[in-house]
Amino acid sequence: MSQDVLFDFERSDRIGLSEALYCGSKSPAQVEAAVADLAHRGVRVLLTRLDEVKYAQLGDSVRALLDYDSFSRTAVLGSLPMPSTPPRIAIVTAGTSDLATAGEAARTLMFYSESAEIMADLGVAGLWRLLERRAQLVMFPVIIAIAGMEGAFFSVLGGLVGNPIIAVPTSTGYGVTSGGHTALHAALGSCAPGILVVNIDNGFGAACAALRILWNGARPTSVN
Amino acid sequence: MSQDVLFDFERSDRIGLSEALYCGSKSPAQVEAAVADLAHRGVRVLLTRLDEVKYAQLGDSVRALLDYDSFSRTAVLGSLPMPSTPPRIAIVTAGTSDLATAGEAARTLMFYSESAEIMADLGVAGLWRLLERRAQLVMFPVIIAIAGMEGAFFSVLGGLVGNPIIAVPTSTGYGVTSGGHTALHAALGSCAPGILVVNIDNGFGAACAALRILWNGARPTSVN
Amino acid sequence: MSQDVLFDFERSDRIGLSEALYCGSKSPAQVEAAVADLAHRGVRVLLTRLDEVKYAQLGDSVRALLDYDSFSRTAVLGSLPMPSTPPRIAIVTAGTSDLATAGEAARTLMFYSESAEIMADLGVAGLWRLLERRAQLVMFPVIIAIAGMEGAFFSVLGGLVGNPIIAVPTSTGYGVTSGGHTALHAALGSCAPGILVVNIDNGFGAACAALRILWNGARPTSVN
Amino acid sequence: MSQDVLFDFERSDRIGLSEALYCGSKSPAQVEAAVADLAHRGVRVLLTRLDEVKYAQLGDSVRALLDYDSFSRTAVLGSLPMPSTPPRIAIVTAGTSDLATAGEAARTLMFYSESAEIMADLGVAGLWRLLERRAQLVMFPVIIAIAGMEGAFFSVLGGLVGNPIIAVPTSTGYGVTSGGHTALHAALGSCAPGILVVNIDNGFGAACAALRILWNGARPTSVN
Amino acid sequence: MSQDVLFDFERSDRIGLSEALYCGSKSPAQVEAAVADLAHRGVRVLLTRLDEVKYAQLGDSVRALLDYDSFSRTAVLGSLPMPSTPPRIAIVTAGTSDLATAGEAARTLMFYSESAEIMADLGVAGLWRLLERRAQLVMFPVIIAIAGMEGAFFSVLGGLVGNPIIAVPTSTGYGVTSGGHTALHAALGSCAPGILVVNIDNGFGAACAALRILWNGARPTSVN
Amino acid sequence: MSQDVLFDFERSDRIGLSEALYCGSKSPAQVEAAVADLAHRGVRVLLTRLDEVKYAQLGDSVRALLDYDSFSRTAVLGSLPMPSTPPRIAIVTAGTSDLATAGEAARTLMFYSESAEIMADLGVAGLWRLLERRAQLVMFPVIIAIAGMEGAFFSVLGGLVGNPIIAVPTSTGYGVTSGGHTALHAALGSCAPGILVVNIDNGFGAACAALRILWNGARPTSVN
Amino acid sequence: MSQDVLFDFERSDRIGLSEALYCGSKSPAQVEAAVADLAHRGVRVLLTRLDEVKYAQLGDSVRALLDYDSFSRTAVLGSLPMPSTPPRIAIVTAGTSDLATAGEAARTLMFYSESAEIMADLGVAGLWRLLERRAQLVMFPVIIAIAGMEGAFFSVLGGLVGNPIIAVPTSTGYGVTSGGHTALHAALGSCAPGILVVNIDNGFGAACAALRILWNGARPTSVN
Amino acid sequence: MSQDVLFDFERSDRIGLSEALYCGSKSPAQVEAAVADLAHRGVRVLLTRLDEVKYAQLGDSVRALLDYDSFSRTAVLGSLPMPSTPPRIAIVTAGTSDLATAGEAARTLMFYSESAEIMADLGVAGLWRLLERRAQLVMFPVIIAIAGMEGAFFSVLGGLVGNPIIAVPTSTGYGVTSGGHTALHAALGSCAPGILVVNIDNGFGAACAALRILWNGARPTSVN
Repeated sequence: MSQDVLFDFERSDRIGLSEALYCGSKSPAQVEAAVADLAHRGVRVLLTRLDEVKYAQLGDSVRALLDYDSFSRTAVLGSLPMPSTPPRIAIVTAGTSDLATAGEAARTLMFYSESAEIMADLGVAGLWRLLERRAQLVMFPVIIAIAGMEGAFFSVLGGLVGNPIIAVPTSTGYGVTSGGHTALHAALGSCAPGILVVNIDNGFGAACAALRILWNGARPTSVN
Repeated sequence: MSQDVLFDFERSDRIGLSEALYCGSKSPAQVEAAVADLAHRGVRVLLTRLDEVKYAQLGDSVRALLDYDSFSRTAVLGSLPMPSTPPRIAIVTAGTSDLATAGEAARTLMFYSESAEIMADLGVAGLWRLLERRAQLVMFPVIIAIAGMEGAFFSVLGGLVGNPIIAVPTSTGYGVTSGGHTALHAALGSCAPGILVVNIDNGFGAACAALRILWNGARPTSVN
Repeated sequence: MSQDVLFDFERSDRIGLSEALYCGSKSPAQVEAAVADLAHRGVRVLLTRLDEVKYAQLGDSVRALLDYDSFSRTAVLGSLPMPSTPPRIAIVTAGTSDLATAGEAARTLMFYSESAEIMADLGVAGLWRLLERRAQLVMFPVIIAIAGMEGAFFSVLGGLVGNPIIAVPTSTGYGVTSGGHTALHAALGSCAPGILVVNIDNGFGAACAALRILWNGARPTSVN
Repeated sequence: MSQDVLFDFERSDRIGLSEALYCGSKSPAQVEAAVADLAHRGVRVLLTRLDEVKYAQLGDSVRALLDYDSFSRTAVLGSLPMPSTPPRIAIVTAGTSDLATAGEAARTLMFYSESAEIMADLGVAGLWRLLERRAQLVMFPVIIAIAGMEGAFFSVLGGLVGNPIIAVPTSTGYGVTSGGHTALHAALGSCAPGILVVNIDNGFGAACAALRILWNGARPTSVN
Repeated sequence: MSQDVLFDFERSDRIGLSEALYCGSKSPAQVEAAVADLAHRGVRVLLTRLDEVKYAQLGDSVRALLDYDSFSRTAVLGSLPMPSTPPRIAIVTAGTSDLATAGEAARTLMFYSESAEIMADLGVAGLWRLLERRAQLVMFPVIIAIAGMEGAFFSVLGGLVGNPIIAVPTSTGYGVTSGGHTALHAALGSCAPGILVVNIDNGFGAACAALRILWNGARPTSVN
Repeated sequence: MSQDVLFDFERSDRIGLSEALYCGSKSPAQVEAAVADLAHRGVRVLLTRLDEVKYAQLGDSVRALLDYDSFSRTAVLGSLPMPSTPPRIAIVTAGTSDLATAGEAARTLMFYSESAEIMADLGVAGLWRLLERRAQLVMFPVIIAIAGMEGAFFSVLGGLVGNPIIAVPTSTGYGVTSGGHTALHAALGSCAPGILVVNIDNGFGAACAALRILWNGARPTSVN
Repeated sequence: MSQDVLFDFERSDRIGLSEALYCGSKSPAQVEAAVADLAHRGVRVLLTRLDEVKYAQLGDSVRALLDYDSFSRTAVLGSLPMPSTPPRIAIVTAGTSDLATAGEAARTLMFYSESAEIMADLGVAGLWRLLERRAQLVMFPVIIAIAGMEGAFFSVLGGLVGNPIIAVPTSTGYGVTSGGHTALHAALGSCAPGILVVNIDNGFGAACAALRILWNGARPTSVN
Repeated sequence: MSQDVLFDFERSDRIGLSEALYCGSKSPAQVEAAVADLAHRGVRVLLTRLDEVKYAQLGDSVRALLDYDSFSRTAVLGSLPMPSTPPRIAIVTAGTSDLATAGEAARTLMFYSESAEIMADLGVAGLWRLLERRAQLVMFPVIIAIAGMEGAFFSVLGGLVGNPIIAVPTSTGYGVTSGGHTALHAALGSCAPGILVVNIDNGFGAACAALRILWNGARPTSVN
């Protein structure tokens, strides 16, 4: 049985965003075959959920093609463009544990020439940490907010600034907050109006949504 | 089959709190029989979850024995003692919708001679409302905090004051917050340390817990 | 116990969006008191989840103050501004059953001088209905997509256009799709990148999010 | 305690399908004993959910009896018949990650002399991939459709062709789509009429159902 | 806001099955408008989930257009064709409580000129009831099996006959079987191979799936 | 479509227990038809889950045939035998709210000539109530224990006596204990060894299980 | 902190069953300390959920004290009594995968001098396997039935024999049957009357319940 | 990307409790960086959820700074103060398996100069173990109660003493009690009034809550 990937090469033309290679449920052999095929065609592509164990199982020749970052579990096949100046997207996290997801979002934005400013550890148990950043935050056209546990972070932020806010609940926590569903539901049911939400731990999706907002449907021609 | 209630008359001696009559799953006939029996014995008792429809189905003679409050769905059989002065318990709510639960807590406290100060609508989407009350709140030996929806209220409050906080999640909300489980999980998984939690909509239980803390196991002799 | 609403009057200054009066879990008496108080202060306000039964229980004098729409269960206290021209927001629905939620979104936008174009019944079992609208849809800076049942609508739309898409899952359905959680999870887990999601049946929240994107944090001065 | 397998040898006579050996929750010793016993009796049998680790724990003599395929986690004891010509069943998948389940279905069909045509990566975010195959797909008496994540694939396919469609949700995904329940519910609650569904990751069951439809209760005599 | 239904008139050409009007989440006004519009166009249509209360709220002129059956909550706009002879589909139920769902399936089949034979009360606690029907059941090209509670019915039937079986779990039951999820999971996880499943209470979907199998993608020209 | 009930008349011969008529999901017309048919055949039968509303909808002639008890929602068609002397089964409940389920169990036992002794309100918050009954309880060959809320009752009882204990969790409660799942799980996961459990609110099933234990598979000939 | 076990030495006097040592959530050090202490006191004790890995981590001197069985994950400290003759308990399983749980039940019974007859692989997809055993099964005072997946086994058995039946759902399965909840709910919601249920995989509890029924509260003096 | 921790240094001033370092979802590198930074600043800090594997991955220099306890998975950076005399907090557990959580609570209290008295194995299946301790328990201003499985322990304790009780459900158990949700719900839905609850396995949170009660908002100056 052939295990070749049937890539959606025209997605970028349709919606500005090209297909990414989600490695979470692919075998190393499947990742290898896809990367080799895409490299052969000269296609730039972003790989997500490529953890260190799976990355180490790829052949040397394939690994040599990739710009890999273990912390965010992402890799890039092909060149990384110069980032836009200055950052138009703020990525704020409630805790240190949310930084891997922040990294996935930041790397996705970099793939599309957007840089982001990351501000970590602004959780609401220490409210001053977030209040001090308010003036700075309102300057960004889009804010990506990342939090696990009970997700109170989203509501406080949403009541402080009027910018578009993309909430990314994370699976950080244990007991009732294990798996991220409490943070997800807190984001969706927030008492602050107009919070937007993506799947648990989905830094990639948050970045794509931010690009949809920034580009407003039209991918800049400067992005190859 | 006899439907008499086998009351735990000695509970008050054991733990300071007397048994309450939970009417939520009792038929009007069961409530009537219990009230008549307890009145005959001269026992003071608090009735909870007695909604207007069920109250209206009770006989006139039984209704005449009760001090009923439809908003909090509570009734008292027997005298109401004079409240303590000044209030030692603050009841704070995130929204107007949480006031019925606040009422149940306040009426329970009144049954035991404790008065409470209720502050409503302090939800975190309008953070100033809560910040302005901080100096006042830290004066109370116990704070009962009531919130539905995403329950972010508990975490912000818990990061602002060091008092004992009893969180009561409410079933206010719809979609993912319907039924109160998101608020419950937010309270349990709060990033603020040491938040204490009772069942959804359980104003009665929050008041009992507050009395346990205030009395520290010893019901004041002034409470009959 | 006072049941006055402690309104967040300064929310509009902070985030551009003023507080709305969520009537879903308020008693008619609470709604009446709030409307009377806000009318007295001359504050414009949007009421949501005010169903026909509760509306009918309000006093005549309060009802006279409200511009009520039973289909979307919304009411407006105060003047309705002239809508912007032409519509900048498309509201697309998978089925007729989703129109009440579409109405809530549209009325919320109207409250803020934004008009919307509603296109209904574009569900993917009849794919041509959506494909025919593609050229038209890409013109809108923001698309609000509303669907219940299995929520496949969101993924197909997200693969066709690159605009910002706000998905509103609805509780339309029965059996496994009852309550809207399947549509919610389908939106969050979509294979199309960058779909943004709000709570089930939350037309109000989708509209607020759309305004955050359109205004980018700065409410137009033309909106009173 | 004896751990012998009490095989349902007459199932094939009753319903045309013989019992398969589900190895998912059997110990290597149990698998070994069953294979040895069945080989001794000269019974052809299909083994499912035999992962590489468990296969490696089987004794050499038992492994020698099996035609093992690690990708689909299946093994065949006894001869494999010649496949029918041409394929009467199409197996279509939304993503590369669904191919292991496709393999389980295909191997099950091969055990019964049916061959299948596998078409992978037809997910709806790149709609053209599926639309291009429509003319080809309508030729097959049965279509097995395999998809994880949000399962929008089933609805789009069901609206395009009138053939019998057997949906196999897979556990591909993370966050809300983790475990396959969202894809399962999407298949069951599809807006396209008449989609048939089997358990998550159940390629074996899908193949058996396809054979029930093809044979219509009468196993061909050509199948030994 | 217009509430017209955008009907998928070409569905019948594509997949043989025409769009049905699901009334479960439509207001009476929406049903009325749709029926009037479709009657005006001369389109035959099946209405499902039209309960007695909603039917009674329709205007007299609309009701006069419909062939309504309260037990199955279905209505037909336009002529009912002569049924095929003899029945090709058996509908078997575990209990009397499952007959409303059986009715929905039968009426859907009648809409497409197919008649069905209904056999009720064959639940496995009285196993002889089902065993006695085995010889009769194997004659039908398709069997629709309907059961609630614990759904053991599906597994026993699936082990007795080799025909295609479409399992319809119903919401009959209480406690752990309330809502139909236990019966649904029992059907999906059956130890009998190749059981096919549709949504809870979905008699309509089961009928559509049966037609897909009978017609094999090609709607008979005899069906108008 | 015929709606006759296909009764399992031989069940009593097979297992000693005759089929009961579960009215919970049957229409009044279905109940009427079944009762009339069974009366015509001279069959004694127990009806369960026949609430007052449905009972009132039955025709006068059918109601005249039934010995109805609204509290336990049961009815008996045919004669009630004399009860055995003395009671061999104890039915103990944690609260007054559990008495309706106790009644269903007691009436089921009466149908089979067994009487039961009911002891109510023995909940563990007032532990003495249960401890005082210990000597009495150990005399009964079977104990049926009924409790809702958190179901701690089952564990305490199971640690006090060695008799067979049949736990019936009830749906009494609210918030996290709403619906009875907490009490059910508490019974199943009890730290006291050998507690047996039936479905939520299933007094009928508990009685049948008690009879299985008392009769040990052989229905006494004294039971007609 | 002392980690000694405070054993309930008098449980055997109270209820006939002595406390067992549940090793599932104890560290090897805790198991070791408890076994050493109990051996020192000369107490016979049953250890459950002691898997091979944890057993191997115990010290040699402790392991020497134990009669260990890896398949059932049980160990006995102290002498094993002679079994009763002949077996009074039948243990029947639907599949081979359920045999480990059967082993736990059998070893628990052996600890109390009861022997059991195990009959495996009687699952209902091959109905004849169970029907053939009916005459044999009705001879046993108690039947322990063990099944995973969809748990249809319990209902068929319950309709065939009138003996007391203790259902043990197992976690065998995948997708919707993963974890054993479907089998559990099937047992609890069975259409066969009077099935008794214990926790998932709880062979120990089933054996204890069987002993309660056999002994009827009075542990035989022959059991030390 | 910087992975520094933005510590809430002023939390101790605000609420008396300083921020703890939750290591559960942090990488070893993140823990190392945080400890080094805090040591450099001379800040005392408590580390929680630092399991042996992660601890072993820390560098030698960092490990040398920590007072580590593997059983409770806690570490202390900086000096441990002298404990208060005598203990003001009782920690009672239902089983030996709950001792790790008890250890986390005790170590947290030690960090704040409070000592605790731990009483283990008081589970209600052996009721005398708890009843014997009643007189002793009522002496403590706060009781932390820890139990898994069905959590009946909380209700019995709550009915025996009137002290403030902080219930910590644990994830001890399997089947329906796996993960701790049954114990959690039992604590929240207890029939004993005024039980307070924290998250599953949250010994740290219970200790913090106990300190809030003991200090009543004012951290003693004796605690550095």
